[in-house]
Amino acid sequence: MKAETLATGDEILTGAVIDSNSAYIAQKLEETGIEVVRHGCVGDNIEAIAAILKEISTRADLAVITGGLGPTLDDITADAAARAAGVELVFDREAMSCIENFLKTQGRDVIALNKKQAMLPEGSECLFNSVGTAPGFVLKISRCVFFFLPGVPSEMRMMISDGVLPWINKLQKGKKSFSLVKTISTFGLAEAAVNERLAGLTKKFPKIKLGLRARFPIIYVKLYVRGKNKEKADILLEKALEFVLNKIGNFAFSADGESMETVAGSLLRKEKATIAVAESCTGGLISNLLTNVPGSSDYFLFSGVTYSNKAKIKVLGVSEATLKKCGAVHEETAKEMADGARRIAGATYGISTSGIAGPGGGTNEKPVGTVCIGVATADSVEAYRFNFQFNERSRNKMIFSITALDLLRRQLLGKTSETH
Amino acid sequence: MKAETLATGDEILTGAVIDSNSAYIAQKLEETGIEVVRHGCVGDNIEAIAAILKEISTRADLAVITGGLGPTLDDITADAAARAAGVELVFDREAMSCIENFLKTQGRDVIALNKKQAMLPEGSECLFNSVGTAPGFVLKISRCVFFFLPGVPSEMRMMISDGVLPWINKLQKGKKSFSLVKTISTFGLAEAAVNERLAGLTKKFPKIKLGLRARFPIIYVKLYVRGKNKEKADILLEKALEFVLNKIGNFAFSADGESMETVAGSLLRKEKATIAVAESCTGGLISNLLTNVPGSSDYFLFSGVTYSNKAKIKVLGVSEATLKKCGAVHEETAKEMADGARRIAGATYGISTSGIAGPGGGTNEKPVGTVCIGVATADSVEAYRFNFQFNERSRNKMIFSITALDLLRRQLLGKTSETH
Repeated sequence: MKAETLATGDEILTGAVIDSNSAYIAQKLEETGIEVVRHGCVGDNIEAIAAILKEISTRADLAVITGGLGPTLDDITADAAARAAGVELVFDREAMSCIENFLKTQGRDVIALNKKQAMLPEGSECLFNSVGTAPGFVLKISRCVFFFLPGVPSEMRMMISDGVLPWINKLQKGKKSFSLVKTISTFGLAEAAVNERLAGLTKKFPKIKLGLRARFPIIYVKLYVRGKNKEKADILLEKALEFVLNKIGNFAFSADGESMETVAGSLLRKEKATIAVAESCTGGLISNLLTNVPGSSDYFLFSGVTYSNKAKIKVLGVSEATLKKCGAVHEETAKEMADGARRIAGATYGISTSGIAGPGGGTNEKPVGTVCIGVATADSVEAYRFNFQFNERSRNKMIFSITALDLLRRQLLGKTSETH
Repeated sequence: MKAETLATGDEILTGAVIDSNSAYIAQKLEETGIEVVRHGCVGDNIEAIAAILKEISTRADLAVITGGLGPTLDDITADAAARAAGVELVFDREAMSCIENFLKTQGRDVIALNKKQAMLPEGSECLFNSVGTAPGFVLKISRCVFFFLPGVPSEMRMMISDGVLPWINKLQKGKKSFSLVKTISTFGLAEAAVNERLAGLTKKFPKIKLGLRARFPIIYVKLYVRGKNKEKADILLEKALEFVLNKIGNFAFSADGESMETVAGSLLRKEKATIAVAESCTGGLISNLLTNVPGSSDYFLFSGVTYSNKAKIKVLGVSEATLKKCGAVHEETAKEMADGARRIAGATYGISTSGIAGPGGGTNEKPVGTVCIGVATADSVEAYRFNFQFNERSRNKMIFSITALDLLRRQLLGKTSETH
């Protein structure tokens, strides 16, 4: 099956917003074994949308369209779809109740504009939206099955997994061919280095397609296999996974594409251990990551985000002498911060960050990108200094945080020093 | 003039890489007054590229194509362009010397593969590349002038400013128009409600195009105007902005598309005030947002992320009695948290959050989505209770945090109670 994606919206067309939906959708479709052959984008213009929908309907078997399903006047995708299909917009009870249910959960009333969202092209089927007012819909135009989804990424993603992928499975029934994908999360090696370590994989496993995907600062190794015999494919994938883990070693932290915070959290839970954090330059990002994981309250006790030295002293009990002697960005300070947080919260482990995220604050001796990370346990306190070369505040905050969580992970695995 | 962009490359088509070039190019073209009507993307497939180039040549006056100009075998864009134009690839001396010059600056020798990069479609003109080996080229196919550029963003950007824009100025000769856009950030009104309040804007300002964009939980109002007379357009835009701010009132927090944390930070700086935060359910997100703003160390002193009651008591000085009597999620507790953080850090203001982000932890009396937010000043402590209905942990954390920052903003503006 050949598929296309189309993003609609002036904000994307004019470049005000970078379209990340198409990439996400393409990945999901590729994982089901569908070949994506084209992406497109047009603005909030009914003729333009209708025209490109007609073109797609003659080229593709399947298409995913995002954007323009909102309640407002510039949301015209349903209109354009009806025009392309040569049908009328009709009131869809299912869509209306989907909207009503969502608004009810919001304690909001249905207004006239929402009713507009329940007008779908005749012959289309409503796609339920559990996180927004805009229902999607499926409509066949000539040979192509179109999935129309909202452009809001969180809503689009939810509807891809809840609505589109099940549909595609139905469409693919009969055609036995399927595809499996395995995602290994790695941290600490550059993309090129990962690629180098995995040289030879495709020779050893010619049926496996290797893909690397970077979502800073994590590099995901993706193993795709397509086939007819699932058991065989599973065994092949397991062997390839073993090959990858062997080459990547402890830089690989999950064989299921999990996040670093999820893995660190699971290790803490397994050990019935708790964690306290002391953050300076990461400004709360470490605690935010840890607490993004549902149930993290089982092991996350406290984080002291201490930007000011006064707070470091008063809250974490860092000694004034150390701050005077070594400064805020130093291994000694990081040690006292980590141990202080651990003691105050009565946690099993304490981790800390103190560094320079930039853009300002750098010196020759401690340039932007310098960070000291402390790891405290009941009977040890270690600190490590790193210097990252990203001249971007948000990237520095992120890589400082992930590095601290990775040190915690290695501590929990008893592999702090191992680097291969 | 109508323009289109096209990105080529399997890594973009399969979603391994998000295409940011098209957005950049669209912005640059829009700034020169050229209307971008479509973006496209195809893979490293000569037939696919040639086919879409032919389509574009019949629709657009101008097109910018990126990718596939490298030295390797899957770099086939020049080939595809020649095919679409019905001409041969010919050796281009200018392109070759451009390649030689660049390699010289790198201290590298010309290899056979580079010679391939000097083969351009007959009738095309070389575009100089000062930062890479791949020269670009300009080629007219039927009515459309095509600019072919490398896909490496840094090279593409350089060649847009050095090669494409000067060329466009020549093409435009006097019939130059331009477009302006204004972005207003709003929080607290649903998209439909914003739209309802702005009904009548397009009637009153027919030359203005209105666009709403939601990036949870912020709704951005975008005003687009195109014209030949910049002064007139500026005045028009100012009038439309005034209209919008009038209708949206204090729900609008920036007339420049700024983030809530940036606006709150600027108000703190203007007042030479400082902020301390006490976070429970937001888990560090408020401090993370605040510290994403460069220079935030001028006003951000401390955040205590206190998940455990013990930490609330020990670090923030919340009274055990209050926690016993009211529980962790309560206005009284939120008040003591906000005031505690403020006092410990010696800050001008203190804000706090205590609630249930979910998925677990909800009760009938305090369901998931309940949050109590405290705002403390030197001479007052207020607390507010909200109940949001998003059944998603990350969304709850985000809307809790933005609501707290909005309450701080309103406090700083002295408009806490005003809601219109």
